[in-house]
Amino acid sequence: MPDNIKILEGGVTAPKGFQAASAAAGIKYKGRTDMALIYSDEPCVTAGVYTTNVVKAAPVLWDKAVTDSDKKVRAVVVNSGIANACTGKQGLDICRVTEQAVTDITGDSSESVLVGSTGVIGMKIDPEKITAGVKDLMSKKAYGKEAGTEASKAIMTTDTVNKEIAVSFEIGGKTVTVGAMSKGSGMIHPNMCTMLGYVTTDAAIEKKLLQEALSDVVKDTFNMITVDGDTSTNDTLLVLANGLAGNPEINSKDENYKLFRDALYCVCEYLAKRMAGDGEGATALFEAKIINAKSKEDAKIMARSVVGSNLSKAAIYGHDANFGRFLCAMGYSGAQFDQNDVQLWFESAAGKMLVFDKGDPVPFEEDEATKILSEKAVTILINMNEGTESATAWGCDLTYDYVKINADYRS
Amino acid sequence: MPDNIKILEGGVTAPKGFQAASAAAGIKYKGRTDMALIYSDEPCVTAGVYTTNVVKAAPVLWDKAVTDSDKKVRAVVVNSGIANACTGKQGLDICRVTEQAVTDITGDSSESVLVGSTGVIGMKIDPEKITAGVKDLMSKKAYGKEAGTEASKAIMTTDTVNKEIAVSFEIGGKTVTVGAMSKGSGMIHPNMCTMLGYVTTDAAIEKKLLQEALSDVVKDTFNMITVDGDTSTNDTLLVLANGLAGNPEINSKDENYKLFRDALYCVCEYLAKRMAGDGEGATALFEAKIINAKSKEDAKIMARSVVGSNLSKAAIYGHDANFGRFLCAMGYSGAQFDQNDVQLWFESAAGKMLVFDKGDPVPFEEDEATKILSEKAVTILINMNEGTESATAWGCDLTYDYVKINADYRS
Repeated sequence: MPDNIKILEGGVTAPKGFQAASAAAGIKYKGRTDMALIYSDEPCVTAGVYTTNVVKAAPVLWDKAVTDSDKKVRAVVVNSGIANACTGKQGLDICRVTEQAVTDITGDSSESVLVGSTGVIGMKIDPEKITAGVKDLMSKKAYGKEAGTEASKAIMTTDTVNKEIAVSFEIGGKTVTVGAMSKGSGMIHPNMCTMLGYVTTDAAIEKKLLQEALSDVVKDTFNMITVDGDTSTNDTLLVLANGLAGNPEINSKDENYKLFRDALYCVCEYLAKRMAGDGEGATALFEAKIINAKSKEDAKIMARSVVGSNLSKAAIYGHDANFGRFLCAMGYSGAQFDQNDVQLWFESAAGKMLVFDKGDPVPFEEDEATKILSEKAVTILINMNEGTESATAWGCDLTYDYVKINADYRS
Repeated sequence: MPDNIKILEGGVTAPKGFQAASAAAGIKYKGRTDMALIYSDEPCVTAGVYTTNVVKAAPVLWDKAVTDSDKKVRAVVVNSGIANACTGKQGLDICRVTEQAVTDITGDSSESVLVGSTGVIGMKIDPEKITAGVKDLMSKKAYGKEAGTEASKAIMTTDTVNKEIAVSFEIGGKTVTVGAMSKGSGMIHPNMCTMLGYVTTDAAIEKKLLQEALSDVVKDTFNMITVDGDTSTNDTLLVLANGLAGNPEINSKDENYKLFRDALYCVCEYLAKRMAGDGEGATALFEAKIINAKSKEDAKIMARSVVGSNLSKAAIYGHDANFGRFLCAMGYSGAQFDQNDVQLWFESAAGKMLVFDKGDPVPFEEDEATKILSEKAVTILINMNEGTESATAWGCDLTYDYVKINADYRS
């Protein structure tokens, strides 16, 4: 975290003029809250990045049309329980119903409403539940940390913890705040692997630069995590900026833009790592750090391949010093390299240990390796010794519980 | 199976002039046999296909040099327990020691010896164990089904069953036989996903055509299975042809070549499906059949993506009719298509059921779906309705036992 960026308590309601709410609309089976609202007092410029899956859920198509347009947005409505994906013509109807339900209350149909859904694919949502849910959300929306936290809980599916963060920094004597929440635990893999993420800010910033900052930041944060290699139909990351901080508008790539981008990076990296560490059934955050690779692209695909390998993930779960699996995963990643250049360390809060040194296994104490691999966060550090580029990817271990959760997700 | 190809009992020793043996050389911890020999009375022409992993094990480099050369081969020596991968300079020394041990006994150093290893990556093999093991194998080698079966057992690692097959057919009034064995259960994924496979034949066939037939057949058989998405460092599939059937040599792409290729296809498809169904921890063979796709390549990548998805595999394990996961996996495969063209069925010995019809979910009886998905072999049949190309891929379900086996493989 750069010195000029400060971490705050709270999430999406931390920036000025943002409210939130949650509601139990009966979409999920388990009586939990299953709808969330983010609401800005002032219209916002928006930016978004979306799943690369060819099978795109209706909310992805809807939101992309909105963020690609010049329309301002005040409200984001998200439901969990059903993904509104593979739902035929009814899919976009549900998005329309959601927007209508909001604008019926605000009375302002010139603005768009962003929507999000997460849950089971191929099930239909009852539009009446959405309309009633939106009414409930709009009547309960509130400022402050608690409302933001409740919203971050309402969008959870198999997540075990809610994920939110807020940071602030100064631009031209004004305090600018960025807040965010996200959910995601399974069906998570690079190429927009967020599942759902929402960032709010009171920064005044041009729409074009907001999108540019988001697209830039996502490449090294959300797109570097994986839980199971499954790129979802619904992945969406949105930013809303309402300008209420009163800073001189960011409209060129100057120092202020850089600062905003850094803050956005911190927020996205934090949420990405939280999601990886809370992967379905996970007991550990599993980080692969590639240094001194020939190219940035090579470094990225190798890092992602290591954290994405089922065999690597199972070894992390078993605290098993089976380093050959990490080398194997680098080898089939698509990157070219010579194994005789490679050095590989196990690293965690419990220590650091070289286990493979330029083509040769290094004899090591099994007990010490197990100790290092038993921490809640484990890093595989790999020096390629072939260049100057680096990349880090995050994932989690593969456990009995991942299988259990996914063998009967719908029930 | 074409009418003119007959299935026989046995494996690599079924063709004329092939012997086999197994030995317990102490490379594995568990006192099981861990070395196997295939031995031909006459020198053989050879062909091979190998892993695409950048991190290639020493035996892969060794065998490729042999099959790329014009050297004849009489013996294949395989060990399980240690993969002889990521072992630095010692790796190729072990291959040399193996060849030397064989030629010291045969007295003929003009021929090469093919080698294979499977097991833990990054551990070194004691060369003295190899030399003693080869002596034992050479003294025990024998004709007949039993010797072949024992060899197929000696190369197993986490496999629960040995895999072998033999077929015969007629060329020019002579009976030609093809036999084979393979092992593979984890770290299995297209691009030479065999782990290890060995085919013997008494056919007389030109080396160039033998390689061509093998490379052709492997694309739709071994390269269409996946267990865990991990392409091994050691994948190897070899064919040895000793010509003892006495058929007129196959030296052009005529009917006889086609018949030989068909027989090779049958053998490879059988072993590929056996390996997929015996994937680590698997309870079911999981088949994805794509029909009427725009291109063969699209059909293949979609089929492989469906059987390779952790979420699809977990759904199969749970007999959970969560068809959205199959559509999702097709969507991120890289193939382009319109979900509104797609039809998807569940199919098995217990029945067939349409669950998604051109963009819309089809209401279905949950109990009936569970029944279909509870069989030992389950097919997801997908009609793209966009072209004429088809492809089939095979995998297995993802189970607690996969995690268990791989969380502590080395112990």
